[in-house]
Amino acid sequence: MIGRSEDYVERLKGYRRTIYVAGKRIENWIEHPNIRPVINAIAKTYDLAQNFAVFSDLVGEKVNVLNAVIRSQEDLIKRYDFQRELSLKLATCNYRCTGCDAINSLYPVTKMIDERNGSDYHKRFIEFLKEIQKRDLVCTSALTDVKGDRSKRPLQQEDMFVRVVRKDEKGIYVSGAKVHQSGAFAADVNFVLPTQTFREGEEKFAIAFASLPEDNVKFVLQNTGVQAKFREGGSFEMGNPKFGDRTTCMVIFKETFIPWERVFVFEDLKATRDLLTLFACSHRCVGASCKAGFMDSMAGAASLMLKVNGLENVPALRQKVAEIVAFSEAAHAIAIGGAVKGYKIADSWQPSREIANSAKIVGIEGFMKSIANLIDIAGGIPATSPSEFDLKGEIGEEVKKFMQGSEKFSAEDRMKVIKFVEFWVMSSHLVGAFHGGGSPSAALIFLQFLADLKEREKAVCDLLDIKS
Amino acid sequence: MIGRSEDYVERLKGYRRTIYVAGKRIENWIEHPNIRPVINAIAKTYDLAQNFAVFSDLVGEKVNVLNAVIRSQEDLIKRYDFQRELSLKLATCNYRCTGCDAINSLYPVTKMIDERNGSDYHKRFIEFLKEIQKRDLVCTSALTDVKGDRSKRPLQQEDMFVRVVRKDEKGIYVSGAKVHQSGAFAADVNFVLPTQTFREGEEKFAIAFASLPEDNVKFVLQNTGVQAKFREGGSFEMGNPKFGDRTTCMVIFKETFIPWERVFVFEDLKATRDLLTLFACSHRCVGASCKAGFMDSMAGAASLMLKVNGLENVPALRQKVAEIVAFSEAAHAIAIGGAVKGYKIADSWQPSREIANSAKIVGIEGFMKSIANLIDIAGGIPATSPSEFDLKGEIGEEVKKFMQGSEKFSAEDRMKVIKFVEFWVMSSHLVGAFHGGGSPSAALIFLQFLADLKEREKAVCDLLDIKS
Amino acid sequence: MIGRSEDYVERLKGYRRTIYVAGKRIENWIEHPNIRPVINAIAKTYDLAQNFAVFSDLVGEKVNVLNAVIRSQEDLIKRYDFQRELSLKLATCNYRCTGCDAINSLYPVTKMIDERNGSDYHKRFIEFLKEIQKRDLVCTSALTDVKGDRSKRPLQQEDMFVRVVRKDEKGIYVSGAKVHQSGAFAADVNFVLPTQTFREGEEKFAIAFASLPEDNVKFVLQNTGVQAKFREGGSFEMGNPKFGDRTTCMVIFKETFIPWERVFVFEDLKATRDLLTLFACSHRCVGASCKAGFMDSMAGAASLMLKVNGLENVPALRQKVAEIVAFSEAAHAIAIGGAVKGYKIADSWQPSREIANSAKIVGIEGFMKSIANLIDIAGGIPATSPSEFDLKGEIGEEVKKFMQGSEKFSAEDRMKVIKFVEFWVMSSHLVGAFHGGGSPSAALIFLQFLADLKEREKAVCDLLDIKS
Amino acid sequence: MIGRSEDYVERLKGYRRTIYVAGKRIENWIEHPNIRPVINAIAKTYDLAQNFAVFSDLVGEKVNVLNAVIRSQEDLIKRYDFQRELSLKLATCNYRCTGCDAINSLYPVTKMIDERNGSDYHKRFIEFLKEIQKRDLVCTSALTDVKGDRSKRPLQQEDMFVRVVRKDEKGIYVSGAKVHQSGAFAADVNFVLPTQTFREGEEKFAIAFASLPEDNVKFVLQNTGVQAKFREGGSFEMGNPKFGDRTTCMVIFKETFIPWERVFVFEDLKATRDLLTLFACSHRCVGASCKAGFMDSMAGAASLMLKVNGLENVPALRQKVAEIVAFSEAAHAIAIGGAVKGYKIADSWQPSREIANSAKIVGIEGFMKSIANLIDIAGGIPATSPSEFDLKGEIGEEVKKFMQGSEKFSAEDRMKVIKFVEFWVMSSHLVGAFHGGGSPSAALIFLQFLADLKEREKAVCDLLDIKS
Repeated sequence: MIGRSEDYVERLKGYRRTIYVAGKRIENWIEHPNIRPVINAIAKTYDLAQNFAVFSDLVGEKVNVLNAVIRSQEDLIKRYDFQRELSLKLATCNYRCTGCDAINSLYPVTKMIDERNGSDYHKRFIEFLKEIQKRDLVCTSALTDVKGDRSKRPLQQEDMFVRVVRKDEKGIYVSGAKVHQSGAFAADVNFVLPTQTFREGEEKFAIAFASLPEDNVKFVLQNTGVQAKFREGGSFEMGNPKFGDRTTCMVIFKETFIPWERVFVFEDLKATRDLLTLFACSHRCVGASCKAGFMDSMAGAASLMLKVNGLENVPALRQKVAEIVAFSEAAHAIAIGGAVKGYKIADSWQPSREIANSAKIVGIEGFMKSIANLIDIAGGIPATSPSEFDLKGEIGEEVKKFMQGSEKFSAEDRMKVIKFVEFWVMSSHLVGAFHGGGSPSAALIFLQFLADLKEREKAVCDLLDIKS
Repeated sequence: MIGRSEDYVERLKGYRRTIYVAGKRIENWIEHPNIRPVINAIAKTYDLAQNFAVFSDLVGEKVNVLNAVIRSQEDLIKRYDFQRELSLKLATCNYRCTGCDAINSLYPVTKMIDERNGSDYHKRFIEFLKEIQKRDLVCTSALTDVKGDRSKRPLQQEDMFVRVVRKDEKGIYVSGAKVHQSGAFAADVNFVLPTQTFREGEEKFAIAFASLPEDNVKFVLQNTGVQAKFREGGSFEMGNPKFGDRTTCMVIFKETFIPWERVFVFEDLKATRDLLTLFACSHRCVGASCKAGFMDSMAGAASLMLKVNGLENVPALRQKVAEIVAFSEAAHAIAIGGAVKGYKIADSWQPSREIANSAKIVGIEGFMKSIANLIDIAGGIPATSPSEFDLKGEIGEEVKKFMQGSEKFSAEDRMKVIKFVEFWVMSSHLVGAFHGGGSPSAALIFLQFLADLKEREKAVCDLLDIKS
Repeated sequence: MIGRSEDYVERLKGYRRTIYVAGKRIENWIEHPNIRPVINAIAKTYDLAQNFAVFSDLVGEKVNVLNAVIRSQEDLIKRYDFQRELSLKLATCNYRCTGCDAINSLYPVTKMIDERNGSDYHKRFIEFLKEIQKRDLVCTSALTDVKGDRSKRPLQQEDMFVRVVRKDEKGIYVSGAKVHQSGAFAADVNFVLPTQTFREGEEKFAIAFASLPEDNVKFVLQNTGVQAKFREGGSFEMGNPKFGDRTTCMVIFKETFIPWERVFVFEDLKATRDLLTLFACSHRCVGASCKAGFMDSMAGAASLMLKVNGLENVPALRQKVAEIVAFSEAAHAIAIGGAVKGYKIADSWQPSREIANSAKIVGIEGFMKSIANLIDIAGGIPATSPSEFDLKGEIGEEVKKFMQGSEKFSAEDRMKVIKFVEFWVMSSHLVGAFHGGGSPSAALIFLQFLADLKEREKAVCDLLDIKS
Repeated sequence: MIGRSEDYVERLKGYRRTIYVAGKRIENWIEHPNIRPVINAIAKTYDLAQNFAVFSDLVGEKVNVLNAVIRSQEDLIKRYDFQRELSLKLATCNYRCTGCDAINSLYPVTKMIDERNGSDYHKRFIEFLKEIQKRDLVCTSALTDVKGDRSKRPLQQEDMFVRVVRKDEKGIYVSGAKVHQSGAFAADVNFVLPTQTFREGEEKFAIAFASLPEDNVKFVLQNTGVQAKFREGGSFEMGNPKFGDRTTCMVIFKETFIPWERVFVFEDLKATRDLLTLFACSHRCVGASCKAGFMDSMAGAASLMLKVNGLENVPALRQKVAEIVAFSEAAHAIAIGGAVKGYKIADSWQPSREIANSAKIVGIEGFMKSIANLIDIAGGIPATSPSEFDLKGEIGEEVKKFMQGSEKFSAEDRMKVIKFVEFWVMSSHLVGAFHGGGSPSAALIFLQFLADLKEREKAVCDLLDIKS
């Protein structure tokens, strides 16, 4: 079943959450100007999901692809198509993609754990997942530990990593903090996964579990310029007024109790390694479609910008728009290629690891050039424009007069497009594109180990009659 | 049926061809040092084809995918996988890809002509194609006219374009010359297609036909440094001794007779336009897989280069190899994405036009960076090394001593790898990557018209409540 | 004489200005949180000027290089060195560079006008300039008209360009608005120059004059995320707390009276053309040193970021810092080269026009890569970090604990660096680097006309014995 | 005194040299088709030197700047201007720049050795240099040892490094081989310098000396496609018929005797380090001007290419030519900036080390883009054109007809330009730009140590009130 956005928002009202924004714990968190856009974005994932539903044999009906175990190329392509559409229509994070990555990592990993150990993690996970699928719950995940001093190992600074501090019959108690977490404060379920592999002796960090609204957790929101703008209000000054910029948080656990039913990896170094590989590749591949959708939005903004300025017939500028489209189409195509060249593991279909990592490396280049092209097309005005408040304030008449471009658009419409471009080129998008799912450098290191150089070397040796 | 390379070479012996190399008409053309490598490369397409055969309903059996009408995503992906493997294993052109592009453009175009005009071009083409499929003939195609002064229209300089000069009941007579043609001198069939669209009054140029060995045609080979090296002989000095560099020619027609059975487009402006679009997209999309295979070969060469120099454990250099792999994987993935997001037209499956053109734009970036990385990894030696002749000549002992790298390889093996790198970075490959199937600029202009900006603009307007 | 920052700030107190910020006319404008940083930045130009003073024969003493007529290579290099130091030490605009560009354009242009016409604009300008030099006044300039619909000529939309609406014996009356103007609201003198060349019949737009605080002018400030952050307060949350982000405004004239003493170009198409060329090249060349200073600051931030994270010994990351340094050193060197290869015109020394425009094209590449490297080095945290308010608020203890990196730095210091990186990568800097002094595309078009291709072609023809 | 090219060529006739080309020792080496172009290029350095002569206090007259000790900014700029002009007019190496680098490294280093040790190397060097200056001798230098297995230290593979094998009262005996050496076979003096720094115990490798024609030395020439083409003859087929491609060699020493008068560094680890730093920076900085001249030549070729094709009025293509000019101007400006920001050491003026290394990193980017632009502008024809031999052979009439472009040029002229473009994009130029003077990676590592990060960090700390 595909859920309804109203039900999601209704559910949120029942969650008492400890959320800090700009130094204060906020009360009516659902309506807070930095959180409402996140909820709007997530709500939209319900409204658009119908076309992308896939059948789940776990619950015997069609479910939201964002909560599905991906079993085939086709389903994975469906996921990527949905992701691209969401990115285009939201112009920000949909917040549920990491949930899907977590589901598609935990599903095979728990199966493999049980096959090794005869345990029942997989069954436990499936029970939990069925509930998610039936109710179309919103899932996110949290990976990156705060890490402290990067030159130290975890045991030298335990506080800097989420870890088991105690366990009993009913469950485990965890402490630590995750950063870079997108949207968990507005989700139903937050999967907590390890940030890195660990060595022998570091088992306490090698855990994965699900956190629910009832858990003792604190969220501290990021604070960027866009967030500050949202707190000041207005109807379009913040660029993407309905859905905002990707909003992340720090998630703090302090002896937080997690019942065994929600613990899916427990002090297991091998499972942690597998989980990380699966999650990273899953996220990097879908990331290409995500960025494709963002670049689609930039292409739309660029094209509109030409029109509001009366420049839509200048070939050199139209060509720069076309180049953004090229980067977008290529990025999505890479993800599709990753889906097709994927592999089956423990009843799940995973994208090609080589392509997933390559997507990151090639994708970021296109993303930067798209931003550069958008800036080039838009001119300096996204950085220097007066505000919506000026347009509507004491000086409004003159601002309106002087911000007018093509007669086909009102000055207000022109300013909306300008502020939207500002949002693309002066917000967290570039940083997000670099580091979401790990940096290009990380992808390159990964690829160093994945790449089948032997076969490539052999082909060269055959050409040259080298026998070594 | 997949043909046998022996039969192909045997067939060639029956062809009396007029071929000029370096100023002279050559006699025993099959054994000429600039042509033999081309024949070797084409022969290899038979040896490797079995895994990629597809069923043809035209002849009721499996045929070489290079001669197939592509009917589905799966077949198109098979074609791309084969292309990549050929590029890796040949490190040069396989010469048959343009034949496949021609078949998959002429098939739907002749069908559409007949639907419009009630003519029988499609039947004629199918009869011709069945013969090709049954005998697994080698097809190439020729597009680019010599064009003369680019500021003039064709009618101002008729000689510069292949055109009908006369016709009778039996067929047409054509004059003109094509350039940039790859390998027709070693093929069974050469499809001759228009180079551009034409306007009313220019119908005589709007033609497509097949040329056979019996036709009155002259070939003039290109002459590059690699060609000169092949004429000097040696066993590895030319870098890619078995298969050589992509070898192109000028193809000259002079009142050449073509019977109607082999004329597939005749003075048809609309069909010419369709043919060009189909051919260009077909070729640009497969081009991504072709370059992927080339980059695979470069990655193999780079990896070997590190080993022969004793540098295989330097992380910064291994990372540069991994980056080549990233460009390769991404390029191939784009082609796959193009196949998946393709469309059906007149019973053929064509790659996505948006993705095909994007492949060109993004692909060339990766290709240039791969060459740069290979140069960086290899050092200056591919440009400065003594020759194979020195290694084997009077000064051989000293050259051998001083060209020795890691003990795991002989000096000769190291020099083979060095010369192979020279072949990658100092030959026609970069030019070929730019202009094969049209330049990136051409792809960008194409994309300008293809890109669905309306939908992208609409998404932005919806986000911003702009109603225009 | 080099002025004192105290005097400058004291002078400002005497200026009654009409300034709008975020929709409201502001009262105590000097202390407004969006303006105070601009004043701080300008004040700093006095504190650092001593080392860069140059002798002015106009007033017979050393003056601030920012107000000097540049007479030699040495003085121009001094200017560039000062610019780089200011950019490093302010990490934002110093607001006076456009004043210096205006002085060094108006000086020769007025001289050439008088030589052509026997008028006395030059004397008039010199009188005005002597006052500026003696009192070390702060000068800015305003160029870009709002332009409205770019497909129309100025006469089709007069309001969209600053123009003469009336004149009398005492002076002229001007209307219109300028955008992208940096810091005029905090200056003593604002030079108003044309934004483009004009054709016959468009003379009314072909004017240049100086505007003073007593004129009837309105300023409407830009509004970006950084500005919003400054309005919320805090001691480092805004990234660059002392000096802020480059702050621009719209400058509105409405029948504003300008006495003849301050009119330097009047309805003169030729002078307008000259002025634009001189200004553009002057600004683009100094822009390279400006960006060099910014990249220096980014290199410093990157290097600190490694230290606060305990990553200062990772070679791959240190190399990325070194690359930022390379872009910075190269950018400054280009400006120096431009000064050396400059030319004398009407007693002023101007940078090479070819190099000035090349600086723009090459510089922006380095700037983008520097931002990319800084993002890569810093990780995702500049986009996702909690705020200063969180560090100091209810949740402070936990934020402090989890934001701790290397023990050598406090969590607060680490957060300062993080917010400073956010300021570099999520503010108007990239847009400014693209469009300040005109876009790279504009520079390229300029270069198309400047480039001496004849000499280059001749060299090739000589090599090849081509005689045409 | 500036020498005369005739005298140089006359001198060469007196040198009996052991030179191997393509496997054979060549007899009349001066007229060998692979060597004559090198001699032509060097001869040209005399013809063009007059404008760039500088005063030498050593000999009390003006000398060729290529043999001068650079004492000032002005002289260094003169050198760079000469270098750029040579690169434009030769379109290949001038072979004497490394001689100049050697002179300007050995001069200060020998002075510093003597200051440390009270030895008389400096006097010895000056005596030698006076002779060079007076007779305007051609000097080159040789640095890169063959190095063998890069994972081993020199003592593990002594043969792979030039070293002292014996010494007596009269001099030293050296063995080993240098590679990547440009033009020593056509020079009067070849300075032999160390390739890297050495550790204690490795003193035997830490030597520098001058080699003269009378020494027992063998040269083995490189062999590339361009070399093969030159051996086939023709009047323009090889692209740059007069001056050829940069021609390097392996230089082999076998117990070669070098009298003490020509030994300038002897088993001195510190001097080796200094020498390398000085040489590398000297060469990298002049390299920027060298590449500027090459890019000038490419811009000329690109501009001609447009004309021969009738495309000179297409703005998008002209813009690509302008971009090549931008890279060229910027590269030369960087070198000039390096000269201005240089430093004095032991009575010599050296370019800024920071800028010299940055020049390499930024320069290679522009060089690659220039090649890409040239390819884009020229189309595929430089790779696919028939040869000069075809134009002049049996098929000549038809080749002439079909290779005709704009009527303003003959088909032969068009083919000359085409072959010249082939020479730029399919020869050793890109490899040379990467590795001449060391790779960009080497420059980056160097810069890592040179960069003054402390000052940059301090500026950031001041901005943020960080006190650590």
